Amino acid sequence: MIILGIDPGIAIVGYGVIFYDGLGFQPVEYGAITTPAGDKLTDRLRDIYESIGVLIEKHKPDAFSIEELFFNTNVKTAITVAHGRGVCLLAPSILNVPIFEYTPLQVKQAICGYGRADKAQVQRMVTSMLKLNAIPKPDDVADALAIAMCHGYSAKYHNLIKEEGI
Amino acid sequence: MIILGIDPGIAIVGYGVIFYDGLGFQPVEYGAITTPAGDKLTDRLRDIYESIGVLIEKHKPDAFSIEELFFNTNVKTAITVAHGRGVCLLAPSILNVPIFEYTPLQVKQAICGYGRADKAQVQRMVTSMLKLNAIPKPDDVADALAIAMCHGYSAKYHNLIKEEGI
Repeated sequence: MIILGIDPGIAIVGYGVIFYDGLGFQPVEYGAITTPAGDKLTDRLRDIYESIGVLIEKHKPDAFSIEELFFNTNVKTAITVAHGRGVCLLAPSILNVPIFEYTPLQVKQAICGYGRADKAQVQRMVTSMLKLNAIPKPDDVADALAIAMCHGYSAKYHNLIKEEGI
Repeated sequence: MIILGIDPGIAIVGYGVIFYDGLGFQPVEYGAITTPAGDKLTDRLRDIYESIGVLIEKHKPDAFSIEELFFNTNVKTAITVAHGRGVCLLAPSILNVPIFEYTPLQVKQAICGYGRADKAQVQRMVTSMLKLNAIPKPDDVADALAIAMCHGYSAKYHNLIKEEGI
């Protein structure tokens, strides 16, 4: 099963494409979609939407896994990021890829075994589980891979394994 | 000049298509895109995006006018509406329609002459200026028409009139 994980944002959208066979994970492609701060919001939204569309067309993921938005105390930032998350969700919706959403707590719990794990612990686990040579940078990329793996581990996915007999 | 005005949201997205010749306005089409509360957010975002795309293809507006998001004290609601506003902005961005954003204050000022006008005053002005038989309902529709007219009145548009010699 191919899973596309997305860490949503406006300036940096992390993405991680992984293969999961029910036992272990293999990295397929990972990186970040970046949009310049000087660009108009509308151009940045289009860049993000189109880049995710390209990733979906290229890898044909079986599942799209995305983090839920943490309710930032800075409402203005939260609103801008939510614009970006809206177009992140639109791409798989239009291209008929099943969408799964996880909270930061669920992601940490899935990867590290407990929800209060810090960023560095998550990054080390991602690096180790995917047998990478170095921690993926920027942080958003490691986060996206963690979100993809979280879906692999999730009960939802385990139900899918049974149903589809993978 | 054809202007498409949008009052962004998730449950109800008001839209108003008007024609402006530099002197007066004529209504072309107006109404609301509604998405059921029981639907998944991703399906609602797709509905909104596709419906706006249909309006753009149909009316080929010269300008897309949309209200800026008022920073609600309810962060959760603001974030959900911002997801919707993100996909509202994406449609004209992809279809190359110039996008103009106005604050609620600017809209009221343009329509009623002062920024503290209440909702009922804006609705009466919209109804009168477009020679409608009744106040458009729901409120989001009247708001969308006001946002479209605001663009007609705006300095930005008056510059465009000069440039294009309309």
